Amino acid sequence: MYKNTLRKAAHTWKRIIKLRLSEQEASMLRFYVDELAFTDLHWGMFIPAIKGQGMEQRQQKWLPLAYKMQLIRCYAQTELGHGSNVQGLETTATFDPKSDEFIMNSPTLTSSKWWPGGLGKASTHGVVYARRLVDGKDHGVNGFIVQLQSFDDHSPLPGITVADIGMKFGNGAYNTMDNGVLRFDHVRIPRDQMLMRVSQVTREGKYVQSDVPRQLFYGTMVYVRQTIVANASCASSRAVCIATRYSAVRRQFGSQDDGPETQVIDYKTQQNKLFPLVVTAYAYRFVGEWLKWLYTDVTQRLQANDFSTLPEAHACTAGLKSLTTSTTADAIEECRKLCSGHGYLCSSGLPELFVVYVPACTYEGDNVVLLLQVARFLMKTVSQLGSGKQLVGTTACMGRVEHLLQCCSDVQQAEDWLKPTAILEAFEARAARMSVAYARNISKMPSQEEGFAELFSDVVETAVAHCQLIVVSKFIEKLKQGIPGKGVKEQLQILCNIYALFLLHKHQGEFLATGAITLKQASLASDQLRVLYAQACPNAIALVDAFNYTDHYLGSVLGRYDGNVYPNLYPKAWEEPLNDTVVPDGYHEYIRPMLKQQLRTVRL
Amino acid sequence: MYKNTLRKAAHTWKRIIKLRLSEQEASMLRFYVDELAFTDLHWGMFIPAIKGQGMEQRQQKWLPLAYKMQLIRCYAQTELGHGSNVQGLETTATFDPKSDEFIMNSPTLTSSKWWPGGLGKASTHGVVYARRLVDGKDHGVNGFIVQLQSFDDHSPLPGITVADIGMKFGNGAYNTMDNGVLRFDHVRIPRDQMLMRVSQVTREGKYVQSDVPRQLFYGTMVYVRQTIVANASCASSRAVCIATRYSAVRRQFGSQDDGPETQVIDYKTQQNKLFPLVVTAYAYRFVGEWLKWLYTDVTQRLQANDFSTLPEAHACTAGLKSLTTSTTADAIEECRKLCSGHGYLCSSGLPELFVVYVPACTYEGDNVVLLLQVARFLMKTVSQLGSGKQLVGTTACMGRVEHLLQCCSDVQQAEDWLKPTAILEAFEARAARMSVAYARNISKMPSQEEGFAELFSDVVETAVAHCQLIVVSKFIEKLKQGIPGKGVKEQLQILCNIYALFLLHKHQGEFLATGAITLKQASLASDQLRVLYAQACPNAIALVDAFNYTDHYLGSVLGRYDGNVYPNLYPKAWEEPLNDTVVPDGYHEYIRPMLKQQLRTVRL
Ligand SMILES: Cc1cc2nc3c(=O)[nH]c(=O)nc-3n(C[C@H](O)[C@H](O)[C@H](O)COP(=O)(O)OP(=O)(O)OC[C@H]3O[C@@H](n4cnc5c(N)ncnc54)[C@H](O)[C@@H]3O)c2cc1C
Ligand SMILES: Cc1cc2nc3c(=O)[nH]c(=O)nc-3n(C[C@H](O)[C@H](O)[C@H](O)COP(=O)(O)OP(=O)(O)OC[C@H]3O[C@@H](n4cnc5c(N)ncnc54)[C@H](O)[C@@H]3O)c2cc1C
Repeated sequence: MYKNTLRKAAHTWKRIIKLRLSEQEASMLRFYVDELAFTDLHWGMFIPAIKGQGMEQRQQKWLPLAYKMQLIRCYAQTELGHGSNVQGLETTATFDPKSDEFIMNSPTLTSSKWWPGGLGKASTHGVVYARRLVDGKDHGVNGFIVQLQSFDDHSPLPGITVADIGMKFGNGAYNTMDNGVLRFDHVRIPRDQMLMRVSQVTREGKYVQSDVPRQLFYGTMVYVRQTIVANASCASSRAVCIATRYSAVRRQFGSQDDGPETQVIDYKTQQNKLFPLVVTAYAYRFVGEWLKWLYTDVTQRLQANDFSTLPEAHACTAGLKSLTTSTTADAIEECRKLCSGHGYLCSSGLPELFVVYVPACTYEGDNVVLLLQVARFLMKTVSQLGSGKQLVGTTACMGRVEHLLQCCSDVQQAEDWLKPTAILEAFEARAARMSVAYARNISKMPSQEEGFAELFSDVVETAVAHCQLIVVSKFIEKLKQGIPGKGVKEQLQILCNIYALFLLHKHQGEFLATGAITLKQASLASDQLRVLYAQACPNAIALVDAFNYTDHYLGSVLGRYDGNVYPNLYPKAWEEPLNDTVVPDGYHEYIRPMLKQQLRTVRL
Repeated sequence: MYKNTLRKAAHTWKRIIKLRLSEQEASMLRFYVDELAFTDLHWGMFIPAIKGQGMEQRQQKWLPLAYKMQLIRCYAQTELGHGSNVQGLETTATFDPKSDEFIMNSPTLTSSKWWPGGLGKASTHGVVYARRLVDGKDHGVNGFIVQLQSFDDHSPLPGITVADIGMKFGNGAYNTMDNGVLRFDHVRIPRDQMLMRVSQVTREGKYVQSDVPRQLFYGTMVYVRQTIVANASCASSRAVCIATRYSAVRRQFGSQDDGPETQVIDYKTQQNKLFPLVVTAYAYRFVGEWLKWLYTDVTQRLQANDFSTLPEAHACTAGLKSLTTSTTADAIEECRKLCSGHGYLCSSGLPELFVVYVPACTYEGDNVVLLLQVARFLMKTVSQLGSGKQLVGTTACMGRVEHLLQCCSDVQQAEDWLKPTAILEAFEARAARMSVAYARNISKMPSQEEGFAELFSDVVETAVAHCQLIVVSKFIEKLKQGIPGKGVKEQLQILCNIYALFLLHKHQGEFLATGAITLKQASLASDQLRVLYAQACPNAIALVDAFNYTDHYLGSVLGRYDGNVYPNLYPKAWEEPLNDTVVPDGYHEYIRPMLKQQLRTVRL
């Protein structure tokens, strides 16, 4: 399998050169090949890291080689003992002023690099994160470019141990990727292979902080995480496309007068589970587009040395990465369950989609840890309220906090819930009240840190509320723009309302507990939601067709565009290798003796 | 892989004969082998089906053969086109009075049997469900014992096509089971191979209903589903055992004065996610024990021709099957995520545990479809209130419906939530009020069926509320019994309170919306929950050690009893076949040409 992946990756690269694709086109092509490979890390992490943290002259050496694929890289940060806590990494890079080199070493078992994709077998080089020891002092963790395998025969260089870490979740899935383990035994590399944009070590062995602010590092994170949010929308739209199409094909129960049975998509329970997932796929697409804009905005500001929006942008992408990946993983699995029995077959496409997707909840920041960062940011925002500090971006609404703490929703009948202002105010009030309440509870504790530790989990709910507010508000903003296509805007309006009211129903407890809405209003919201589902139902198929996936790309017999599910599912069975023989291998050895009661005499 | 499974199954059987194990002991042994095999269906479904539906004299023919494993059976109900809707099955069994035979046939593509475990390769016989056509009339679906493969060479008998249906979710997982496809082309079987306990076809071709009531059929379902609930507790306790132990080994962040970092189990967010899962594993064990009792009770009543408790017992097991399997599947995946990166490795044991477990949400009744049955039963119960009809079992509390609709919880301070009466009343009030409210809403609709269809999904929430009430109340009942072991009862009391208050917090919206509790009381419940987590924390490891699983059975490097995670994870990597060679297969063909920029000239 791994060899086949190598073949595909090489083939893709060949096409990229041949067609002289631009960086963006090439990334599209890799997207459509749709199989994880070492090259993904090369492009997705290694190059952004060098771009973000390398010095100008260094970039000039490594980037062209990387772009031309004359070296293959991985991003080697996580170790056996440390993932989330990057500052706790144990690999050391000790500067030796005599030879002007760093000595890379793995002093403990837990310092072994563990997980980097592409590291196990393919990479020639890695950006390796290690603790800088200069002149006896520990200067914290930084990236180094290290050659791992020889250009001659691809064997590991002296002092380097490298291997694949073994089977992961799923069948094909992530196992096309050679996540690896790496150990150094005093390996020497030239000083200038340290990524020196933010701080430098001089020839004399002096550690110097450069005038480039550390925050630059956050720029790369914003970039990588916004691509993850965009991927969430892709993955969820694939899953809902399969489940929705199959729900229209599948009929079960309810046949009258010998007519056909009911399409399962017509059951309210099915709609109730499926439609929120469909609209979420749309919501994530729009928030993804907005994040892309945010990244550009932040980058431009960084270039103008304006760091004012960075903390908010960072919190916001961290939170949205967490929210979108968690819900998307759940959505894929829910779609699989909505296809019931046949969803459990690999040919439904859903099992592998789930398994390849789900680590997005873990890599680039464990989702819980990210929410804690958002929560810290929110607590800080609350503590600065009234201090005159400018509130930017998604926290701007906190400027009206007085109002939000007191306002009463003016929803009086179900249709009032269709008004964007009503929705927005309810979400803002809930988020603001939760933030303020928890900040207040924390302040009652002996120390802020203790309070934060004690109330950790309430704080996570607050962070989620804030992130949901962002998604809802960006969906509403999107609808304020001109949207081409006859009737499209009206449809999107329905989706937007479903998204908001679905969340409102799901988190009813929080809306009620904060007093953002009343019991009566909660019940009106549920009524309105039912009406909206009924409006969306006739267009369900059109809504998922609009994602415009080819059958080949979807890779699902259940999600076929033409709906010819059964005639295609049946012959698929015969591709199973077990069916190569009618009587299974092992019959004579194990089954027959059991049937003939001759087991006692058989050696197993 | 499949062959290896055959080997293990044969070996297990050999031990069973050699040691002369009883039926119960044998089932224990298969449990510990812990790999799915065709034999599971043989014992788990086939034999109960014959016991439940076969005639006495028939049982005498087939059961001894089956017990001795002189034939291997599968349970062939589901078809390509029909799973949930058993009455819609299309396979036909046409009675031919001339030859006193049934002719089994698969008239359509969708009538192909599809999914039965053990059917694909191993089974010699199957209980095949088919539509009886007798004298031109359709008498509905019934089971037939059909020989599928020859005793001589295991080849399919004439007119029979049988094969494996192909790859399923996961890597090893369920793929050790040969779920199969089966088609009949006018295959003749003797009349007496129809399972005739409930209805019979005479030699003359007359269809006769026997005096054994149809409800008997439900007895088998209650049996099979209660074993599924027991399994839910096993699976969830395995998962939480792994995640809890690893959470105590894993340290991340929070090191002070160069001391060790914080064990992640000490983070409130981790506790908040993990502890509810631990207590749920306990709760399901107790409700499982109670269901076992219920099955015995129902069986005894059936033998005495007392069917009065059957509908309630049936609804109750259906609901609990749905609730426990859905939450257990989610719990396993949550445990995997709580182990973050390393949880994604197969060596953590969690990926395969999930994948093997999750179809329990689908087989033996799709979980949503089951909840709808519960809901129908609840609506019926509500409609009969005041009619004088006796309320039995778990609906007995509805006898106090007047009170439950009006009562106000008397909780005034956080500790009041420790009182079983307070908890029970809140759960009873919520469930009763939801049932009554939805029954009322349905009655406003033009017809009951329409109302039911329209409000389907609210009704599902009502069913869940009822099932949670059952679990909570059985936990509380358990604690009223004497429990051996010093301090054990006190610990279980904490777990019981955590379980109840966790659910209360999670479904806060429903408790508030029904007015079962007030805002203030909801907030007190959350405060008390925090206190309970702190009390449970020091005993977390003891609580999972108490499940008493061996390392071998757990099959998880992260969940090792001795906590030696890293030294065992590291060498595991080297077992990966990719590591058999240092330079990967495919290097010369694909990687080297890419690096050397010679791709243009290479044929891929
Ligand atoms: C498929 C896959 C691909 C990967 N690819 C790469 C790669 O290319 N390069 C690379 O360097 N790494 C890679 N990784 C590693 C990944 O980045 C880490 O697994 C991730 O950062 C999470 O860290 P961890 O596993 O140490 O989790 P841990 O931090 O150990 O988390 C364990 C548990 O502790 C909790 N926790 C931790 N800290 C706190 C806290 N302060 N407060 C509360 N709770 C806390 C977490 O929420 C979690 O529940 C990959 C991982 C996977 C699964
Ligand atoms: C691993 C595995 C092992 C199995 N082993 C066996 C076996 O040994 N023998 C055997 O006979 N079968 C077996 N099965 C088949 C299994 O019993 C069926 O898949 C199961 O009964 C569900 O039926 P379905 O797949 O037809 O779902 P469907 O009924 O097609 O469900 C599709 C969707 O429609 C919804 N839906 C259906 N009806 C309604 C309704 N009335 N109202 C609202 N919503 C509805 C469902 O909730 C679901 O979301 C197995 C399946 C699996 C996955």
